[in-house]
Amino acid sequence: MMKLFLTFVIFFSLIQISTIFAADFSYSGTTGPAFWGNFNETCLKGKNQSPIDIPYNEFIKFSKPDDVEFHDAHDVVIENKGHTIEISKNLDAKLKIKDNEYNLLQFHFHTPSEHRVNGKYYDVEAHFVFTDTKDNLSVIGVFYDVSDRRNRFFDPIIYNIPDENAKKTIDFIKLSSVIEDINWMNSTYNYFGSLTTPPCSEGVNWWVAYPVQPIGKNQYLKLRDAMGFNSRYTQVRNGE
Amino acid sequence: MMKLFLTFVIFFSLIQISTIFAADFSYSGTTGPAFWGNFNETCLKGKNQSPIDIPYNEFIKFSKPDDVEFHDAHDVVIENKGHTIEISKNLDAKLKIKDNEYNLLQFHFHTPSEHRVNGKYYDVEAHFVFTDTKDNLSVIGVFYDVSDRRNRFFDPIIYNIPDENAKKTIDFIKLSSVIEDINWMNSTYNYFGSLTTPPCSEGVNWWVAYPVQPIGKNQYLKLRDAMGFNSRYTQVRNGE
Repeated sequence: MMKLFLTFVIFFSLIQISTIFAADFSYSGTTGPAFWGNFNETCLKGKNQSPIDIPYNEFIKFSKPDDVEFHDAHDVVIENKGHTIEISKNLDAKLKIKDNEYNLLQFHFHTPSEHRVNGKYYDVEAHFVFTDTKDNLSVIGVFYDVSDRRNRFFDPIIYNIPDENAKKTIDFIKLSSVIEDINWMNSTYNYFGSLTTPPCSEGVNWWVAYPVQPIGKNQYLKLRDAMGFNSRYTQVRNGE
Repeated sequence: MMKLFLTFVIFFSLIQISTIFAADFSYSGTTGPAFWGNFNETCLKGKNQSPIDIPYNEFIKFSKPDDVEFHDAHDVVIENKGHTIEISKNLDAKLKIKDNEYNLLQFHFHTPSEHRVNGKYYDVEAHFVFTDTKDNLSVIGVFYDVSDRRNRFFDPIIYNIPDENAKKTIDFIKLSSVIEDINWMNSTYNYFGSLTTPPCSEGVNWWVAYPVQPIGKNQYLKLRDAMGFNSRYTQVRNGE
C-alpha cells in the first residue's frame, strides 16, 4: 500500500513538473520578461544579466577570441520555436578562448536587437551560441539593420521558416560570410553576462560585434513577423 | 531664528523636489522602464497601464469617435526631447467622444511600436495626444512599417529633427493625410489605459488604429536613430 502511495506521489509530482515546464515564457502578459523571475530566480536576482545597453566607446578593436573559425554548413536543421527561429545540427564553427575550445551549438534571432549601443537598437540581432566540453557558454551577437541590399546569408533561412513548433532541413548555409562581414570580430564588446531567456543562467562569455550588417527589407519583415517581439528589456549593468 | 530655520527647510525641500524631476526617466539602466515606479507609483501599481499586446480579433470596424477632424497645420513646433521627437503648437485636429470635444495637443513617436498585435510589433508608432477642457486625455496610436515607399507626411519631420533638447519651426505638415490613410479610423482597438511614460497617469482613452502605414527605409532609420529605443514593455491587461 505504501509503495502504491509513493508511486502516486511520484506520478503526480512528475505531472506538476511537466506543467511548470509547459507554462512557457513569452514576451508579453503574465509570462513576459517582467515575470521571468517566476520561471527562474536568476532572471530576477542575477547580478550579471543580459542584454545590456553598451556605451559605444567601450567597443574595442582587436579584442577577440584567440581563434575564430566559421565554415559553411550543409544539412542543418531550422526550427520555429515560437519565440525564436533557431538553426542547429551539422554546424562547423569554433572559438578558442584561453586554450579552451568552444563549438557552435546553434544560432537564433531576436527582433528588435536585445543589446543596444548608446541607447540605440538595431532591427535584428543574431546569437551564435557556443559551448565547450564543460558546458561553458560563449555567444557572438551580430546586429543587422534594414537595407536596400538583401543579405544572401539570410535567404535559405527566410525561405525555409517552418510553421510554429515545426522543423525543416536546409541544404546549405554560407556561415563563413557572417564572420567575414564582421571582419573576423575586429571590433567587439566582450563581457560576462547571461542567457537572455529563462533560465537566464549567468557566466556567459559575450562577444557583441561591430559593425552592423545589412538585411533586406523583405527578409527583415518576414523574420520579424515569424517571431514577433522577442527582445528582453536591457538589464542593469554589473555595479550600477 | 525659527523663521530662518523654516526658510532653510523650504529651500532645501525645493532643491530636493527639483532634483527628483531633473533625474529624468530613460529606456535603459536604473532609470529604465523597470524602475519607473521610482518616478511615480502609478507606473508600478497601476491596474490599467499601457502599452498592451492586443489580440488582432479585438480590433473593431466602425468603432470610432463621433467626430474626427484632422486639418493640415502651419508653423508647428518640432522638439527633440531626447526620449522622443514631439510636434506641437498650431495643430488643428479634434475628436468628439460622447459630446465631449478633444483637441490635439501634440504628437510624438516611438521606435519600435509600443502596442503590439498578437505579439507582433511594428517599426514606428505615432501617438496623437488630445485633451478636453477638463484635461481628460485621448490618444490615437498609428503604426508604421518600413517600406520601399516613403511617406510624405514624415518628410518635413525627418528633415527638421533638431539637436537634442532643441526646437525648430516647421512651415507645413499635411496632418490630414494621417487620418485619410487610416480610413478615418475605420478599424480601431479602443480601451482605457495610461500614459506610456512617467507619470503613467491612467484614464487615457486609447484608440489604436489599423491598418499599418508605410514609412520609407531612410525616414525610419533617421527617426529611430534620433530617438533610440523608446518603447515601454507591454503591460498586463486589466484583469489578467
